[in-house]
Amino acid sequence: MNSVFAALPTTVFETMSRLARDHDAVNLGQGFPDDPGPLDVREKAAEAVLHGWNQYPPMMGAPELRRAVATHYRDWQGLDLDESEVMITSGATEAIAGALLALIEPGDEVVLFQPLYDAYLPLVQRAGGVPRLVRLVPPAWRITDDALAEAFTPRTRLVLFNNPHNPTGRVFDAEELELLARFCTRSGAVLVSDEVWEHVVFDGRVHRSVLSLPGMRERAVKIGSAGKIFGMTGWKVGFVCAAPELMRVLSKAHQFLTFTTPPSLQQAVAYGLGKDPGWFDAMRAGLQRSRDRLAVGLAELGFSVLPSAGTYFLNVDLAPLDARLRDEAFCRLLVERHGVAAIPVSAFYAEQPVESVIRFCFAKTDATLDRALERLAGSF
Amino acid sequence: MNSVFAALPTTVFETMSRLARDHDAVNLGQGFPDDPGPLDVREKAAEAVLHGWNQYPPMMGAPELRRAVATHYRDWQGLDLDESEVMITSGATEAIAGALLALIEPGDEVVLFQPLYDAYLPLVQRAGGVPRLVRLVPPAWRITDDALAEAFTPRTRLVLFNNPHNPTGRVFDAEELELLARFCTRSGAVLVSDEVWEHVVFDGRVHRSVLSLPGMRERAVKIGSAGKIFGMTGWKVGFVCAAPELMRVLSKAHQFLTFTTPPSLQQAVAYGLGKDPGWFDAMRAGLQRSRDRLAVGLAELGFSVLPSAGTYFLNVDLAPLDARLRDEAFCRLLVERHGVAAIPVSAFYAEQPVESVIRFCFAKTDATLDRALERLAGSF
Ligand SMILES: CSCCC(=O)C(=O)O
Ligand SMILES: CSCCC(=O)C(=O)O
Repeated sequence: MNSVFAALPTTVFETMSRLARDHDAVNLGQGFPDDPGPLDVREKAAEAVLHGWNQYPPMMGAPELRRAVATHYRDWQGLDLDESEVMITSGATEAIAGALLALIEPGDEVVLFQPLYDAYLPLVQRAGGVPRLVRLVPPAWRITDDALAEAFTPRTRLVLFNNPHNPTGRVFDAEELELLARFCTRSGAVLVSDEVWEHVVFDGRVHRSVLSLPGMRERAVKIGSAGKIFGMTGWKVGFVCAAPELMRVLSKAHQFLTFTTPPSLQQAVAYGLGKDPGWFDAMRAGLQRSRDRLAVGLAELGFSVLPSAGTYFLNVDLAPLDARLRDEAFCRLLVERHGVAAIPVSAFYAEQPVESVIRFCFAKTDATLDRALERLAGSF
Repeated sequence: MNSVFAALPTTVFETMSRLARDHDAVNLGQGFPDDPGPLDVREKAAEAVLHGWNQYPPMMGAPELRRAVATHYRDWQGLDLDESEVMITSGATEAIAGALLALIEPGDEVVLFQPLYDAYLPLVQRAGGVPRLVRLVPPAWRITDDALAEAFTPRTRLVLFNNPHNPTGRVFDAEELELLARFCTRSGAVLVSDEVWEHVVFDGRVHRSVLSLPGMRERAVKIGSAGKIFGMTGWKVGFVCAAPELMRVLSKAHQFLTFTTPPSLQQAVAYGLGKDPGWFDAMRAGLQRSRDRLAVGLAELGFSVLPSAGTYFLNVDLAPLDARLRDEAFCRLLVERHGVAAIPVSAFYAEQPVESVIRFCFAKTDATLDRALERLAGSF
């Protein structure tokens, strides 16, 4: 058995969702919306599964979808992408796993940012990478020159980045991004950027892709997700964008990890990406209202709510509550006694966890958020 | 960049399908049927995508599908499987990649059978395994005691097996299977068995799963595929069956390779697996008729057709044709000049390839097969 995987626990998102089901809790843990997703996009998928192609699509993805992804990023972010620089994967998770397996040679040093999504570190380790962790410190969670200088070495070959950032809800600013790009170009590292939350940014912010950073067009891999864009997290349609030289190797991992992704869902996503910019604005505005509803409600209950600039998530700091419980015990109490599931942020740490922050998913209907708030009322 | 993946060519199936499109050829290369698949199963998927759950299903798979898989194998093959011993993956490719990443510790020796499906060897190497190849020799392609004795060593930890076997079309017999099981138990190796063609066996044969071999219930991993069972290869719904101790580690690779698989397709497959045994018999009978139609036609054209006991494939031996061309050049000529795509069997070899055999996929309508035969007529 492999020692990296044998030692792992089940992912916290799965564990919490199971606890939520067992305790009939309002599930604000795992990040998924509780509305069914855009009807027209689902109708396209139904039509394609009934009347379209159900055999292997091309390994790189359905041509319509590759084109739609390139066009979408061109129109929306001004990225100069050719459709040949787009590959479709079975969700962003496959894209990340594939990028790490394709780009890491055992012994390569890999820079990661902590707190980190729980898949990152085991995947880097299983790929043979030697992790070097950059610590982001609450409440600002900023990337600093000092922290990067400590993590990068002459052996750095890859950086695994996430922006907008889960679980902190940060959207890194131009200064931080350019700093990171400078470190990457200086060390010759490839920058793999999980940008699945790119469309989910608030308060008029604009997401900037790593592909547009100075010197990064040829050495960055951008990863996106239809599941997050359309709020249908079970669809598992991911996008990888990279220059041809990188793509050539990335595609080799993809061809042997899943080979392809269901063509019916690819067709529907190709249609969806062609929606009018107003649709994306309305989606963002709706999520921003939900963020505010939950933030105000939690603050009224006495929680110390940290800012969230993007993603489906906001965090609360337990410290001011004078809680004697650490985040994990607190979340267990929440789900078992109060019927509300959340995620302990310590689950996003490999070492020296911050244990006083918990994460709530606000991508829910008003009724769901209000029910959660009612259950929490008077408890703390 | 990773040296295993950087060195790889694009998979022969993809390359041949692209050539087939470019030359408007009849595509008997990559293995997929050209009928649309069972309408009722596609209707269930359409219904589920419109009215069902489109968010993350449980990581191990939709409970209905795990139950349906266990029940299906219990009723059909008499396997004593609990639904907790079933995991759903994004196709059999993910299942194989995950099993190798989960079960191989770098340096472990891994036994494989050559000719082999082209994903196997790079995945074993990327997982850090040291391959030991058992050679199957045409036209009998039998597993022998001598060949196993040469490949197994005290360091053998895993065996990657495939039955029914692609590309040879062999269904290994009880003697060969029990021999293999003896070698596995003796060396303490885990047996990972790609059984995606289990339902596609001909002439009254019955497929026997490795899980039913002596001593293998606790040390075998059985991999199946809805795409192959229902002839909708783009669906990418795979099944992994294994005892709890193995499953615990297998699930860790799955949770970080794709995490989940679209719930709408899982629901539809759960429905499909409940079909009456007569449906599976009719599917087999139809494919057997197609096999015979192509075999007879090719024989009439002077090809030397090798037997096919299962899978979508039959092989022809070019040697008696006195062809001066090796299989790869022959296939290139076929697709470019005659408008028929096939697969050179040398693509299934890591070393010392057999270069006189080419593989045709017969899982096609009569019209498609006849068109291919017409194009080949008078050419050789
Ligand atoms: C793969 S389940 C986790 C989903 C997610 O992005 C989150 O909750 O952080
Ligand atoms: C993943 S494409 C190959 C499909 C197949 O099983 C084959 O043609 O052998």
